[in-house]
Parts: sequence; structure tokens; C-alpha cells
Amino acid sequence: MRILGIDPGLTRCGVGVIDVDAARQARLVFVGVIRSDTSQATHFRLRDIMRGLNEVIAEQKPDMAAIERVFVQDNLQSVTTTMMVMGTAMATLGEAGLPLAVHTPSEVKAAVTGNGKAGKAQVQAMVQRILKLSAPPKPADAADALAIAICQAWRGSGILGATADEDFTVSLSGKVSSRKQLTPAQAQWAAAQAKLRRTGAVAPKGK
Amino acid sequence: MRILGIDPGLTRCGVGVIDVDAARQARLVFVGVIRSDTSQATHFRLRDIMRGLNEVIAEQKPDMAAIERVFVQDNLQSVTTTMMVMGTAMATLGEAGLPLAVHTPSEVKAAVTGNGKAGKAQVQAMVQRILKLSAPPKPADAADALAIAICQAWRGSGILGATADEDFTVSLSGKVSSRKQLTPAQAQWAAAQAKLRRTGAVAPKGK
Repeated sequence: MRILGIDPGLTRCGVGVIDVDAARQARLVFVGVIRSDTSQATHFRLRDIMRGLNEVIAEQKPDMAAIERVFVQDNLQSVTTTMMVMGTAMATLGEAGLPLAVHTPSEVKAAVTGNGKAGKAQVQAMVQRILKLSAPPKPADAADALAIAICQAWRGSGILGATADEDFTVSLSGKVSSRKQLTPAQAQWAAAQAKLRRTGAVAPKGK
Repeated sequence: MRILGIDPGLTRCGVGVIDVDAARQARLVFVGVIRSDTSQATHFRLRDIMRGLNEVIAEQKPDMAAIERVFVQDNLQSVTTTMMVMGTAMATLGEAGLPLAVHTPSEVKAAVTGNGKAGKAQVQAMVQRILKLSAPPKPADAADALAIAICQAWRGSGILGATADEDFTVSLSGKVSSRKQLTPAQAQWAAAQAKLRRTGAVAPKGK
């Protein structure tokens, strides 16, 4: 199972691709940052993010994707931009026909470090350890993209209709949209997860 | 000069296309709504908005586009969705190579009705009058898309580097990005506008 993780940003959009096997062993496939030229108009920058993402999808051929949910915080300007990048990335993933899961930052941190409030350095160090890299992945936003992919590999819930993705859909549209149809990749994933649960290879999900 | 106006929305995205001549006479070319299926996952809905917009662009061949700026208000959920649609639409317009202007809702209302706080019905009635239609354009979100296109036709400032677009760019990226290069369509527009100003056919812009 190949998972593309995306850390949305207009100037730097982190992308990380990992392979994960049925025993949940994760392996680094690709990591990078899609940049857009700050001297360009915003819509051309969003186009460049879309093009970069399409290149990564075409070259790495992921089975599914995961993206970090953006929260509206104090910095509305930055959130506004990030939401537009997120929309662009989501439309691009939709055009590629990929299943998509959305995870909150604390879900990503908890999945990778065991601590939902972990700092960036801790996340980086754990990503390095999990993927058996000789150094922390750089730049930092690329490490975040890998952490999002790892979160999806280990939790998987976003795709299977559990918390993350449905929660997201609820908060965006104001109503629950259930996803009844599984794509082949989703069905494959669900079967692998169910098997792992039966064999006791994966502990039941905690909080 | 053919202008595509977009009123971003996930369930209904209004699109309106008008032709405007050098005397600022506007003519209706196309009006419609791109719908997305609420039972689908959000990224597939955004993909469908992108596809619908690409169809309109391919069929109507606009020279430029204008979109309404979304403000962060009380309803954060709705704004979040709309920002994602806006990002998707902007990336699509960028991919099509179109110049894009962004106008605030009050700029659009002021341009069409003379009153920045005009209601929806007033905007609809004026759009009908300006485009010499036998009935108000429907549905209402399609009328808004036409109003945005008319605003761009009459103000034009967003493209020429004056208030609207630069203001938008400032607020999104936190710094001013000047646009020094005009596309052929922008240069043509700028020349037409300058000529109209010289001949007195257009009064200087008020507030």
C-alpha cells in the first residue's frame, strides 16, 4: 500500500510518499517540497501546486492520500491561504481518483510520537526512526508530510469511515455524509486491517 | 472582451459570462450553476467543480475572470468550504492561463447598483437591467456570478494592479506582490480603458 501525505502550504507544500506492508512496516519512497514563486499572482501559484502534485502522483503512483486538516486559528490570513491550497490539493487528488483521508494535527502527532502535543523536533525524530533514515528528513514541512502518511498508515480510520474523515466532512458541510462505497484500494486496506486485527498484530485503537 | 464571473460554492458554484465592448455595454453570453453531488466525498466534489469550470472555459473562451472574495465571518464552516472551492477555482483559472481579478462583495454591489450594501433582489434587478434581460437571471447564485463579471467590466481595477486584486494579494500572503507584466488581454483592456477615460466616456471612479 503506497500512501501520499500532503502538508498544504502556498510557498512550500510538503509531499511525502511511503510504502506500508501488512505488518505496518513503513518505508520511505519519496519526500519533497512543491514550491511556488512568490512573485506570481495567487492563482498561478495554486496552479503550480496543482502541477507539482500531479507530477508526484504520476511518478509515485500512490494508492491513497492523506492531508492534514487545517484549523482556523488566530492567523486568519495564513489559514485563508492554506485552505485554498488544501482545496486545490483535494481537487487534484479527486481528479486522480485517489481515496483521501484527513487527519487533525494532533492525530498525526499522536500517531507518530504517542503524544498529540509533540513538538516539531520530536515528530521529525520519530519519522526518522520509523522510516529508518540516517538523518531527520528535511526540510521540516517535508517531514510533516511523511508524518501525515505514517498516521494514515497506522490509523487508517480516515478512509474507513471512522473519526477523522467523517468528522471533517461534518465540519465542512454541516451535515454527515457517509461514504458507503469503497474503492478497490479502500476495500483492500479494510481487508488488510481487519486481518491484522484478527491476528492481534495491531492493538485496538486507543484515544 | 469576454469576462467569466465566478461565485464560489461547493453545492452550487455560480458562473456567468458576459461580453463588454469599449463603451462598456455588457451583453449576456452564458449563465449557469456548477453543481456537485452532496453524497460524494469533498475532494471528489471539488474535482467536479474543477471539471465544470474547465468545460465553461473551453466552451466560452473568456479573456479574463473575476471572482468574489470570501470573507471570514461568523460561519467558519461555510467559509472553510468556500475557501476550498475558491482555491480550486483559482488553480483552474491559473491552469487556463487567465488573468484573474478578485472583488469584495461590497465592490460588486456598488458597481452594479451604486450601493455597496444592496440586497440580493436589488442586485438581481440591476443585473437584469444592465444585460437587458426579460427576467431576472436565475438561480440567484448565477445572478451573483454575472454581477461579479459586470463589476470587473466596469471597475477593471483588479486586473490593472489597483485596489481590489492587490489588496487581496496583500491579505493572503501578508506582503504586496506587484504584477508588472500584463498579458495581451490585460494590455488590450488597459488601452481600452485609457482611451475611454481620455474621451470622457467613463466618469472617473468614485467611491
